[in-house]
Amino acid sequence: MTRTVLESATKTVVIGFDEPFCVIGERINPTGRKKLAAELEMDDFSTVERDALEQVACGAMVLDVNSGAVFTNKMAEDPRYADNNFVEPMLMKALIEKVQALVDVPLCIDSSVPGALENGLEMANGRPLLNSVTGEEERLETILPLVKKYNVPVVAISNDDTGISEDPDVRFAVAKKIVERAADFGIPAHDIVVDPLVMPIGAMATAGKQVFELVGRLRGELGVNTTCGASNISFGLPNRHGINAAFLPMAIGAGMTSAIMNPVRSVEMEAVNAANFLMDHDRNGGKWITFARVLDAVKEGTPFPEAAKAAQASSGGRGGRRGGRRRAG
Amino acid sequence: MTRTVLESATKTVVIGFDEPFCVIGERINPTGRKKLAAELEMDDFSTVERDALEQVACGAMVLDVNSGAVFTNKMAEDPRYADNNFVEPMLMKALIEKVQALVDVPLCIDSSVPGALENGLEMANGRPLLNSVTGEEERLETILPLVKKYNVPVVAISNDDTGISEDPDVRFAVAKKIVERAADFGIPAHDIVVDPLVMPIGAMATAGKQVFELVGRLRGELGVNTTCGASNISFGLPNRHGINAAFLPMAIGAGMTSAIMNPVRSVEMEAVNAANFLMDHDRNGGKWITFARVLDAVKEGTPFPEAAKAAQASSGGRGGRRGGRRRAG
Repeated sequence: MTRTVLESATKTVVIGFDEPFCVIGERINPTGRKKLAAELEMDDFSTVERDALEQVACGAMVLDVNSGAVFTNKMAEDPRYADNNFVEPMLMKALIEKVQALVDVPLCIDSSVPGALENGLEMANGRPLLNSVTGEEERLETILPLVKKYNVPVVAISNDDTGISEDPDVRFAVAKKIVERAADFGIPAHDIVVDPLVMPIGAMATAGKQVFELVGRLRGELGVNTTCGASNISFGLPNRHGINAAFLPMAIGAGMTSAIMNPVRSVEMEAVNAANFLMDHDRNGGKWITFARVLDAVKEGTPFPEAAKAAQASSGGRGGRRGGRRRAG
Repeated sequence: MTRTVLESATKTVVIGFDEPFCVIGERINPTGRKKLAAELEMDDFSTVERDALEQVACGAMVLDVNSGAVFTNKMAEDPRYADNNFVEPMLMKALIEKVQALVDVPLCIDSSVPGALENGLEMANGRPLLNSVTGEEERLETILPLVKKYNVPVVAISNDDTGISEDPDVRFAVAKKIVERAADFGIPAHDIVVDPLVMPIGAMATAGKQVFELVGRLRGELGVNTTCGASNISFGLPNRHGINAAFLPMAIGAGMTSAIMNPVRSVEMEAVNAANFLMDHDRNGGKWITFARVLDAVKEGTPFPEAAKAAQASSGGRGGRRGGRRRAG
C-alpha cells in the first residue's frame, strides 16, 4: 500500500490508501488575496498566524505555505521587487518561520519560484511536501534534483509544455512521464503525489467523472497518492459548498488520498469526516462523534474554528471543559 | 446500458447507468409511523396526501407505497384485522387510489403480503416497481410469477432463508441467484433492481465500503440497477444527515442508480443533485442552479417543500412567481 510520509518537528502524517483523507490547508496563500499580500508587504503576519492556528484547529493535517505575493508598493520604490525570484525566497523563509513557531504540523512548500522552494526546504522542520513539479521539461530538470537532494515527497501537476489538456488520457500520460522521470533520479513513486487537475464542472460537464476515473488509474496503474485543488470543481457556480461537499466524498470513494482545501469551512470538513467514516478510516466513529458535537456548537452560533478548538482542547485534555458554557438539559 | 423503465399514467422514469439518480420517496409507509397507522385506521388519508405532494415537489421521481399498517383498535373488535393478509390488500388499494388521484409519478408497490402486491399491481397505472422479492425460496416462488404476469420490474433484496449475511460475497451470491431464477421465468436482468442491503456503519465499520464494492460488482458482473434504504447507513449515529449526505454521492459515484429515501430532507437532496451534476447527469447545471435558488429560500426560512414547489411552478410556468414574496435587492 502506497504511503507518502510527511513530518514536522515532532509529528508524522501519512498520505496513503489506507489512511484517513489528508486535508492540506490552503489558506496561507497571498495569490488572489490582495489584503493578505498588502499585510505581508508591511511585515504584518497576523493573518498568516490566525490562518495557521484556525486551520489546524479545524482539522488541517498539513499546511500549504505559498509565497506568491506581489509587493506593489515596494515595487514602485525598488525595481528588484518586480521580480518574484527576489521577493519569494525571502518571504517563504519568513512565512515558514512564523508558521512553525505556532503550529506543529508538516508543511507543504508552495511556489513557482525554485529559490523559494529551496529556501522553504532549508527552513522547514522534518519532511515537508514540495509543491510542485509539472511535466514541463525545465521544471522537471529544476525541481526533481531538489526533491532528490532533500529527500522529500513532491506534488506532481499533470500539465506540461503544451499546457493543460482537456483530455484525461493526456493528463494521465503526463503524470506517468513525471513518475518515470522521477524514477530516473531515484525518487520512488510513493513520494509523488499526483494532482490530476480538477476543471470546473460549470465549464466542462465531464470534469467530475474525469477526475474520478483518473484517480482510479493513477492509483491502480502508477501506485501513487493523489491530491487536488478541490474547490476548483465548483468555480463560478451558485452554492459552491454544496458541490464541494459532494465532490470530496466522491473523490475519496474513487481513491483520492488528499486535497488542498479550505479546512475552515465546516460543510466541506463535515463531508470529509463522513467520508472517512464511510471508508472505514474512523473505526468506531470516534472522530465523527466529536465532530458532530462541534457542528452542534456551530448551529448554536459558535464560529467553526472556535468550536473545533474547544472540542480539541476538551478531547486532548489540554484545557478541559469551560465551565458555565454548556447548557443544561 | 441497463435501463429499468417505470411508468405512471403519463410519465416515464428510467433507472439507468446513464440516467440521473432515481429518488424513490419513502414517506408513505405506516411501518414505524404509529400516528400514520392510526390515521389510516380511521380512513384518514390526509398525511398520505400531504406526503405524496411534498415528496414529488421536493424531487421524488417515484413514490414508494407501503401498506404495512397494524390496526390495533380494529383488531380488538374483529380478529381478522390481526392478519396482515386481511388488512394490507384493502389498504394498498386505497393508498394507491388516493396517491394516483393527486400525483402522476410511477409507484413502487411495497409490501411483505403477496395479496397486497397483487392488488397494487391491479390498481397502479402504467408500469410500477414491485417491492420486493428476496432470495427466500417461498418468496421467489410467489413473487416472480407476479413479476412475469404483470411485466413489471422488481426490487431484489439480497437476503435468503439463512437471513442477512454480513459477508458481502454471500449477499452478492444471493443477488445472483435471484437474477438467475428470474431468468428462468423469462424476466430480464434489466427488470431486477438489486438492494445489496446497507448496514449501519455504527454497527459495522466496513458497511460503507462493502456497499460501494458490491454496487460495482452487481453492475459489472450482473448488469443490474441497484437501490437501497439509504438512511440505514447512519442508524444510531449523531448528525445522521451529514453521513447520509456523504454516503449518497459516494454510492452514486460507485454506480448506485436509485435509493429509497426521504426526499423532504434538503441536505440529502442537495447531495443527490450535486452528485448528478458531478456525474455529468445535469449537463449545463440547469437543475443545480434551480436547486440552489430553492436552498436560498430555505436559508431565508421557507420550508423546503414549499420552496421546491414554488421553484417548480415558476420553472414549469404553471403558476408564475408569487407577487410580493421576493425581497428586493
